[in-house]
Amino acid sequence: MYELTINLEPGSKTPLYEQIYDYIRQEIQSGRIQSGDRLPSTRALCRHLEVSRSTVELAYEQLLSEGYVEAVPYRGYFVAQLDGLCQLDRHTRRDAGREEKPPVRQYAYDFTPNGVDLKSFPYNTWRKLSKECLSDDRAELFRLGDPQGEYGLRRAICDYLHQARGVNCSPEQVIVGAGSDYLLILLIMIIGNRHRVALENPTYTQAYRLFENMSCEVCTVDMDRKGMAVDQLRKSGADIAFVMPSHQYPLGIVMPIRRRMDLLNWAYEKDGRYIIEDDYDSEFRYKGKPIPALQGYDRMGKVIYKGTFSKSIAPAIRLGYLVLPEPLLEEYRRKCLYLSSTVSKADQLILQKFIEEGFFERHLNKTRALYKSRHDTLLGCLKEMDAEFGISGENAGVHLLLRFSEKYSEEELIRRAADEGVRVYGLSGYYVEKEKKREEDEAVILLGYANMGEDKICEAVKLLEKAWKE
Amino acid sequence: MYELTINLEPGSKTPLYEQIYDYIRQEIQSGRIQSGDRLPSTRALCRHLEVSRSTVELAYEQLLSEGYVEAVPYRGYFVAQLDGLCQLDRHTRRDAGREEKPPVRQYAYDFTPNGVDLKSFPYNTWRKLSKECLSDDRAELFRLGDPQGEYGLRRAICDYLHQARGVNCSPEQVIVGAGSDYLLILLIMIIGNRHRVALENPTYTQAYRLFENMSCEVCTVDMDRKGMAVDQLRKSGADIAFVMPSHQYPLGIVMPIRRRMDLLNWAYEKDGRYIIEDDYDSEFRYKGKPIPALQGYDRMGKVIYKGTFSKSIAPAIRLGYLVLPEPLLEEYRRKCLYLSSTVSKADQLILQKFIEEGFFERHLNKTRALYKSRHDTLLGCLKEMDAEFGISGENAGVHLLLRFSEKYSEEELIRRAADEGVRVYGLSGYYVEKEKKREEDEAVILLGYANMGEDKICEAVKLLEKAWKE
Repeated sequence: MYELTINLEPGSKTPLYEQIYDYIRQEIQSGRIQSGDRLPSTRALCRHLEVSRSTVELAYEQLLSEGYVEAVPYRGYFVAQLDGLCQLDRHTRRDAGREEKPPVRQYAYDFTPNGVDLKSFPYNTWRKLSKECLSDDRAELFRLGDPQGEYGLRRAICDYLHQARGVNCSPEQVIVGAGSDYLLILLIMIIGNRHRVALENPTYTQAYRLFENMSCEVCTVDMDRKGMAVDQLRKSGADIAFVMPSHQYPLGIVMPIRRRMDLLNWAYEKDGRYIIEDDYDSEFRYKGKPIPALQGYDRMGKVIYKGTFSKSIAPAIRLGYLVLPEPLLEEYRRKCLYLSSTVSKADQLILQKFIEEGFFERHLNKTRALYKSRHDTLLGCLKEMDAEFGISGENAGVHLLLRFSEKYSEEELIRRAADEGVRVYGLSGYYVEKEKKREEDEAVILLGYANMGEDKICEAVKLLEKAWKE
Repeated sequence: MYELTINLEPGSKTPLYEQIYDYIRQEIQSGRIQSGDRLPSTRALCRHLEVSRSTVELAYEQLLSEGYVEAVPYRGYFVAQLDGLCQLDRHTRRDAGREEKPPVRQYAYDFTPNGVDLKSFPYNTWRKLSKECLSDDRAELFRLGDPQGEYGLRRAICDYLHQARGVNCSPEQVIVGAGSDYLLILLIMIIGNRHRVALENPTYTQAYRLFENMSCEVCTVDMDRKGMAVDQLRKSGADIAFVMPSHQYPLGIVMPIRRRMDLLNWAYEKDGRYIIEDDYDSEFRYKGKPIPALQGYDRMGKVIYKGTFSKSIAPAIRLGYLVLPEPLLEEYRRKCLYLSSTVSKADQLILQKFIEEGFFERHLNKTRALYKSRHDTLLGCLKEMDAEFGISGENAGVHLLLRFSEKYSEEELIRRAADEGVRVYGLSGYYVEKEKKREEDEAVILLGYANMGEDKICEAVKLLEKAWKE
C-alpha cells in the first residue's frame, strides 16, 4: 500500500478532491504507481491527509469512473491495467494563429459574376421580423422542427413559385435546406448515386465536383446556342440531366421552349430519367416577363426543381429548396425523412414572414430595378467602347459575356485588366474538361455587375478600354 | 399571314403586351396557328390593333425568348417547330392541403430520451444578442462567409472544448455545420465512402442509416459493460469506429480509460483507421468532473471529434461541429472546401457572443443543476417503487435505463405504461440488427427526464408503478 503524501492547498481555487484526483492520476500516468497496486483506503487516506472522508471518496469515484482504478468488493481500490497508456496532455495545444492564406491581390473594381448588392438588403425589416419571431414563439421556436422544413414556409415558397415561376407544386413537395450544396447532397441521397449525371459544359463547376464527390458517374454535354444538346445527351447514356434553362450559368443562355420540350421528351422516353432544373437566378430578367420554369411544363413528374434565396436575398441566408416530383417524394420519405432540418426554425419563420408580408416582392422589385439600371449602364458603356467583341447573355441574370475574336487570349485580357486594377473573369474556368478544345476557340470574358454602382461601372469600363487597347 | 384579332382590354390589370403575348401563345399551343406560319409584322399588327408598336414588339420579344416564334432576318416572325409540345398549365395545382399524418397518441407524460428543457432557454439574452448582431455588422453579415465556419466562432468552440472537454485543437481544425446529420455527411465526403464503419450495438440508429445511405459498408460491434468490444472490432474488418465514449447512447455507459486506450491502439495499428467520437451530451454529468474526451488522449491524429449545441442549448439551434485531425484536414481542404457553410453568419455570430460573453457557461450550469435535480428526483422515486428492475446509465446524460428480469416483455411494459398515459421507450428500438438475439434477453426501458418537471416525474413514476404492478 502507498502512503500518498499530497501537498494539498486548502485555499486553492481547485477543490481538494480534485487536487487528490490530479495527484493520483499523475502518479499512475507516470508509472510511479503501477497497475495492480492497491490505493490506501478512503478511511486511511482521509486521516492521513486530514480531509473529510467524502473528499477522498469523490476523488476515488472520479478515478473509478475514468477507469484509472478499479474497485474490488471487500478489498479496496486497485490501479487498473493501463499498458500503452498515452499520456493525457490537456495543456499543450498548437498555437492558435489564423491559418495562413496566400496574399490576395487587391482590385479597385471587381466584376465578379457571383456578386449581390448587399446595400439594398432590408436590414431594418429583417431585424424587426427577427425580433418579432423571437418574442412571439418562444419555446416552440427552439424545439426541433419538421425535417422537411416548417409547413408555413413551404407554403409561402410554393405560392411564390407558382405565381412567379409557374411551378406546379404543393407544400408537401417542398424540402427546405441550408443552401444549394446541401440540397444537392440530399437529392443524391434520395435518388441514390448509381446514376450517370450529365451537366452542361461550361457549367456551375461546384455542382460537377459535388456529384463526383458523392460517387456519381458524371459526364458533360456540350451547349449549342439554345442550351444543352439533347442528341448528345441521348448518346451520353446519362439518366440525370442537370440544367439551368432560365439563365444558364455561365453562358447566360435562355433555353427556348422547343429545346425544353426536347429535354422533357428525353426524360419521358425512359423510366428513371430525371431533369434537375437549377433555377438559381431566375428572378432577374430585363426583357419581357420571366419565362416559366421547365417544371411547369412537366406532365410526368420528371423535373426536380431547385431554387435558392442566396441570389435573391443575400448569400449568407443559408436557405434554398427542392421541389420533388411525386415519385421521388416517396423515396425521400422512405430514405431521408430521418435527417433533421438544416435550417433553424427561427430563420425559417423570419423568411416566411418576409415572403408572406410582401417584403420579398418589394425587395425583388427594388433589386430588379437596381440591377436593370446597372445592366443598362454597363451595356451603354460597353457599346461606346472601341473594342472587338460581341456581347451575349445580356437578357437575364447579373452578368454578361464579351466574346473576343480569335487574336485575343483570355489570360492576356484578364492580366491586362488586372494591371489596371480591374478584376474580370474568363469563361475557360467554367469548362469541366478544359483540355477538350471548345467549339469556338475564342476568348470570352464574364462581367458581373450586381455588386457595382453605376459610377464604378463607368470608371471600370474606361480602364478596360485602356487595358485592352492595342 | 394571319389577321390576328385580339379583344384587348385596355383597362385591365394585365398589360396590353401581355394580352397580345397570351393570345398568340394560346393560339400556337392549341394548334390554331401552326409551325412555319408567319406572324403579322409588328408594324401591321400595331396598326390593326391600334396599339403602339413597342407594345407589339414587347409581346413578340417575349414569344421569341420563350421560343414560340423565331425571327428570320428581313422576312419576319415565324412560329417555331413545336411537335410534342406539352400544354403549359400554370393554373391547376394539387390541392395544397396539409399532408395527412397518422393520428398521434396523446400522452400526459413523456419520458423521451431526446428531450431538452426549453423553459430554461435564455430567450432574452438570445434576443438581445441577435439584435446586437443585426445592428452591428450589417452588410458584412449577409455576405457569404467562410466555408468552414466563421473564425471567431471556431475559436470560441475551440477554447470551450479545450477547457471543458480536454480536446486539443486549434480553430483551423474545427468545421461548423448545420447539425449532426449534415456533419456526418460532410465527414463521409471527406474520408470517402470506401470504408467499413463499425457502430456500437445498440446505437444512435440515425447514424447507422446515414452511413448506409451514403453507401458506406456498415457493421455493428457488440457492447460489453465497458463499451465497444475492441476484440470484436478488430475481427470486424472495419477501419472506422463510431463511438460515444463519454456517455453511450442509449446504454449510458461511460467508457473507462483502459478501454479508451485499447480503442486508440486499435486505430494506431493500421494506417487509415479512424475513430469518430460522438460527444453528443457530455455536458451533463452528475458525479465528479467530466471525463476528458477521447480526442485529448490521441497522439497520432486518429480521432475525429463531433459535438453539437442541440443538446446543450436547444434542438432548433442547427449548429454542430467537427474537429478534424491534421491528416483529414488536408483532405477536407482538397475535397470539400468548395462547399459553402450551412449555417448563416448571423447565427454563428450570435452563438459566438453567447459563448464568449459567458452566457453559455451560465446556461450550462443552470441546466446541469436543473437536470441533476430531475435526475435525483427520478432516481428517488424509482428506488421507492416496488418493482423488479435494476437501474443503469444513471451517472450522466439525461436518461437512465431500467433493466427488468426475464419474465417481462418490453412491449408489454410500454403498452401498460401507455394505458396509464405515460410514454416510455424500449431499448430494442436502438438495436441495428434486431433479429440478432441480444446477449441478455431482458426487457430494458429508457426514461428521459430532461423535459419533465419534478412534480411531473413523481406523478408519472406513480403511474408506472400502477401500470407495472402484477
